[in-house]
Order: sequence, then C-alpha cells, then structure tokens
Amino acid sequence: MADVHTARRERLRERCGALGADAALVTRPANVRYLTGAEPDGSALLLTRDRAVLAVPEEPLPDAAEQLLQQPDEVQRLEVPPGADPAVAAASTAARHRVEVLAMEEHELTVARHRAVVEAAAPARPADLDRAVEQLRLVKDEEEITGLRISAEIADQALGELLESILVGRTERHLAMELERRMVDHGADCAAYPVSIATGSHAGLVGHVPTDRRVEEGDFLTVALGARYRGYGASVARTFVIGTAPAQWQIDLHAVVFAAQRAGREALQPGTPCGEADRAVREVLQSAGYAEGPPRPVGHGIGLEIEEEPRLGPGDMGKLDARVPVTVGPGVHLPGRGGVRIEDTLVVRPLGEGGPELLTITTKELLAL
Amino acid sequence: MADVHTARRERLRERCGALGADAALVTRPANVRYLTGAEPDGSALLLTRDRAVLAVPEEPLPDAAEQLLQQPDEVQRLEVPPGADPAVAAASTAARHRVEVLAMEEHELTVARHRAVVEAAAPARPADLDRAVEQLRLVKDEEEITGLRISAEIADQALGELLESILVGRTERHLAMELERRMVDHGADCAAYPVSIATGSHAGLVGHVPTDRRVEEGDFLTVALGARYRGYGASVARTFVIGTAPAQWQIDLHAVVFAAQRAGREALQPGTPCGEADRAVREVLQSAGYAEGPPRPVGHGIGLEIEEEPRLGPGDMGKLDARVPVTVGPGVHLPGRGGVRIEDTLVVRPLGEGGPELLTITTKELLAL
Repeated sequence: MADVHTARRERLRERCGALGADAALVTRPANVRYLTGAEPDGSALLLTRDRAVLAVPEEPLPDAAEQLLQQPDEVQRLEVPPGADPAVAAASTAARHRVEVLAMEEHELTVARHRAVVEAAAPARPADLDRAVEQLRLVKDEEEITGLRISAEIADQALGELLESILVGRTERHLAMELERRMVDHGADCAAYPVSIATGSHAGLVGHVPTDRRVEEGDFLTVALGARYRGYGASVARTFVIGTAPAQWQIDLHAVVFAAQRAGREALQPGTPCGEADRAVREVLQSAGYAEGPPRPVGHGIGLEIEEEPRLGPGDMGKLDARVPVTVGPGVHLPGRGGVRIEDTLVVRPLGEGGPELLTITTKELLAL
Repeated sequence: MADVHTARRERLRERCGALGADAALVTRPANVRYLTGAEPDGSALLLTRDRAVLAVPEEPLPDAAEQLLQQPDEVQRLEVPPGADPAVAAASTAARHRVEVLAMEEHELTVARHRAVVEAAAPARPADLDRAVEQLRLVKDEEEITGLRISAEIADQALGELLESILVGRTERHLAMELERRMVDHGADCAAYPVSIATGSHAGLVGHVPTDRRVEEGDFLTVALGARYRGYGASVARTFVIGTAPAQWQIDLHAVVFAAQRAGREALQPGTPCGEADRAVREVLQSAGYAEGPPRPVGHGIGLEIEEEPRLGPGDMGKLDARVPVTVGPGVHLPGRGGVRIEDTLVVRPLGEGGPELLTITTKELLAL
C-alpha cells in the first residue's frame, strides 16, 4: 500500500506546482487518509517537494497510525503535545524547511486556525489548496472499488438478515441499532453514517433520525444504511411494506420511484454530464405527477466520505468519468402518509465493460414483510 | 423554554454591543441550540438588535425544528434551498437589515465559508465573535443541570446492567454496542460519544476504539460512556477486573488512580483555579511513581458538548464558578499490561451547598466481575 500512497502524494505535488506552491498542508481527515493510509484524529500532513511529515497528537496510537509506522514508507511522524495543534506544528516545520508558498485547505481550516497556521508558517506565504485532494480522489483505483464492494456486501448481508426477522412492534431505533450491530458482525469497522429506519408517515424521508415509533401492519418501511470498511463506505436504501399485501397506492408509488431510480442509473455513462442522472429521475417523477419540492441532488460521489464529489444535481455540468462511484437515490414523500426511497451505489463504467457496476445488490422489489 | 432562550439571546446581544457589533452570526451547532432550543443540521442564527432569524436547509424538518415552530417565540425561520449555505443566507439578511458590524464565529467558520459570508453581508463589516456564546454556556442553569443529571442516570443504569451480565468471551465492540442500546432503552437520544470498551492491555487508554478482542479472565476492563439527553451529555468511566480476584498489581494501580481522582474531585471549589484539580491528581500519581507522559488535562467542562470550556489542565489559571459541570478523569496505562481510568462528571458547588455534586454515581470500587 505504501506505493499507492507515495504515488498519490506525487500527484498532489504536481498539483501544488501548478498552483505555484512548493508545499501543501492537508488537514481534511479523509484527505490525510487518502495520502498516507493513516488518519489519527486531528492529524495534519505537510507535503514539501522532498518530504512528507504527518503531525499527530502525542497520545497512545490508534491502530492505523501504528500500521503506518510499520510501513517502509517515507512519511515522517511528528508528535505534538496535547493541546497543541498538529497543523500549526506542521506549519512551523514548513517554515524551518524554507517553504516559500504553503497551500492550505481553506474549505477545511477555520478562520482562527488558518490565522495560527499562517503565523507559524511565516515567512512562507499562504495559498489556497482548495479541493485539490478531493479532485484526486474522484476517480478510484480498483483497490478502492474493492473496499466499496465489500462495504456494500456487508450492508446487503445485514439488510437481508433483517428482512427475515419479525419487524412488527419493534421501534425504529431498535431496528437501526440492530442493523448497525449486524454490519459490525459482518466485518464493518462501524456504520458509515447513522442507520436510518423510517416507518409509516416517516418512510421516504431523507436522513430520518430513528424514533420510538413502532412498526405497524401496512406501513411503508424505508431503510438506509452503509458499512465502513477500510475507510470506504457504500450506501443503500430500500423501501418495503409491512404485512401481507401492499395497498394499491403503495404499489403505484413504489413503481414510480423504482422507474425513476432505474432511469437515473441508466444515465451513468463516462462522458455524460453529472446532472443527467438527476434530470432523468426528475422527468419520470414529474410525468407521474410528483414534483419534488426543493431540488435536492439525486446522488453524489461516495468513497472515503459518504458524500463527496461529484454532485449529481440539477445543472451539474461536469462530466462523469469511468471508475467514479456514485449514489442514485430518489425518493417521494407524501406528508402524513409516508413514501418511498430507493438508493444504490454504482461505479461508472463504459458500456464496453458492461455499463454502470451495481455494488448494492439487495432486491429493489416491493417486498411485503 | 422560550423565555430561557430569549434571555440567553439578550445576554449575547449585550456581549455583541461590548464587541462593537450590532449583530451576531452563530454557526456552531451547540451554540445555535443553546440560543434557540433547535439545532437543525447546518443551520445558522442571525441575531440583530431587534430580531432573531434561524436560517435552515429547506428539507423535511427534524423534530427539534418542529418544536421551535410551535413555540410562541420570536425566532423567524428562513428556509434555504438545498446546496445553498444557511450562513450565507443569514448574512444576506443582515445586509438587508442594514447591519453595520456583523460578529462571526471565526473559530467555527472555515476560511472559504467566512469569505462567502463576508461577501454576502457587505456593506456590513465583519468582526470576530470568538467564543462569546461558549462563555455564556459556561455556568449552567438548574434546568441544564437536570438534563446532565438524567444523562448521568441513564449511563449509570446501562452500566449497572452490563455489570450483571456475563462478560468473558464477548468482544469490546459488542459490549460497546450493547451499552449504547441500553442507554437508548433507558431514554437516551443517542450515545453522547462512541462508547469505549478497553480490555486487557487496552484498559486505561483514553478514547480507545473498541476492537474484536474478547474479554478474558484476569483482564482489566475500562468502560467509558455517556448518554445524550435533550442535548446534554455527562460522561463516566470505570475500571473493573474480570474474574474472581484481582492481582495485587491491579489492586495497587486501581488504588492509586482512585486516590488521584478523589484528590481531583476535592479540588473543585468555586474560586479555585481550573488547573488545581489537575495539579492535585498529578501530585498523587507522581508520588506513587506514575509520571503520566504528555500532560493531558485531567478534565474539562461538559454540557451541550462532551468536551467544552473550561479546561482543567496544567496551568489553566481561570477560576471555577459555581454551577459549572466538569469531568475529572485521570488514568494510568502501562504499555502491554493495561491500566485504570476513572472519570466522573460533577457540578462545582460551594461548600455551603455540600461541595461538588457528583452526577455519575456508579461505584468506583475495584469490582471483580
């Protein structure tokens, strides 16, 4: 793995050069992890032309940092006493190594922290690294995609087990905790985001926080979950019905969202504008009479962060690339009645390779549980 | 509750006046909650001399925001479309209301977000609100302390139940998830922070992330947990021994940490410097031959955030006030062998009122489980 990280750091050095900076200070946790394989809490990576210094809080090491130390890698480790800011310590190191222009993540550093870092880096001049590392992270290598694939398998397994258990009478909170436990049982490091269980009138809501409401006969049940595996997390959402037979309105609503979601998936082609999946989804929903309220993007990139670039929203004009994993997750919510949400994680692939690769394979049928 | 929040906002207006600002933009989630009772994800509060505007993402409302709408309160709600930044929308509102100087939380806003906010607020001039709201939050009212007390009771109950169950052979991860489930069963909104279970050589480590290691006979077992209840979370940590009888070194080490922790608790008096508890703890540990490595503060304030002001660390010279809840949680970790950590949450009270009020009442004895 050391080679992978070395190559990534080399690409970031090239980007820095293009920005007119001879060093970068990386503080966004997912970016630090991408460039080093380690992500100790609060750490900061200084990347100069000829060295990489990872400033970490001086504490008992979490496992990832221990692994890093065991790697035959050129990352130096700089321990920072409790209370001191690793980013400031890294900036001081930059000054000592006569860095002239230090590029920093201005979308990540707070104003107060940026001020302290700039002071410590002087006489180096500050520049904005912006989302350079996020840009590098857009297209995944096959090892990253394997991580996402295993993450998706874990969530699918946990979900499959839940569907076989008795659900009526159990609360949203308990079902959510059980899913989290099952994901960990199947090898997840943790949940990639808080498991969402939405029943009855809550079903179909995005990011619903589980409540003490109990599952009832006739409910719609929306489940959204993701497993974090080696830093990577895919996301899946499904909507089912509780009881023996869904009502007609439930069948109809599910069919519309299912068709919309399929249209979105089919719009994932290398070279297609990012907004195309969103447009395809919206067209199906609108022609069925469902005008979603605020224009929420139908999907987004996914990887080390559960929501990362690119955004698949109205008017997102950037082009999709091969090997970019994204979510497609439309939903319709009818206030007071509930709704349907269906989300997959897929990897953009050219048609010659079979088109978009579906990672989350749990059935999207309207099962009656 | 509306009166409480109105009074808090009035005090913030006074602070703003002292800073030479006629309005404040509050973005730190715990601060928004403190001032409004609501904390929708990503929301921003604009407080001018005569109005309060809460800018929130236009999405199905979480429960807290719904409550806010039902309150006879003067907070106006400003819905912001997906993708737009509520802080920027609030800043535009400030400009429309002819704010002259807008104070912002520079320790909370990123450089990029601050830039966008300053632009939207123009011609209002930016100022630094700094930790003005955190300062207001230092001394708690009795209703806040009740929230912390219930939070502590929930954690104590969950911990008590765990101690009655069979532990040998179970993994750290599973025990952690079970504790979280039990806290929710007892009425917690969620865990206030990830439950930490550290066994064997992990015991005594601060912030240990649970692993697949199984509990064995003879282990030290350190548990650290907190329940979030109405936004407030107390924290408790205990160390026990697995098996019939602890070894002598375990008895001795536990006795030292117990004595140190007691010394720290007894140093909590209104008017005492914040660093005094830390000094008292360190004195006991050092005279027993345990020089902790890096000087980690022995405790900190606790309330809407699990770690907030004041810091109880070496050289913290500010004075403790009555009704400030703090943690006192020293530990000793012997690499390869494990260790002991004991943490309580207490409220500083004058001796005339009985001295520090212990919220986390689970026994600190070295139980053999």
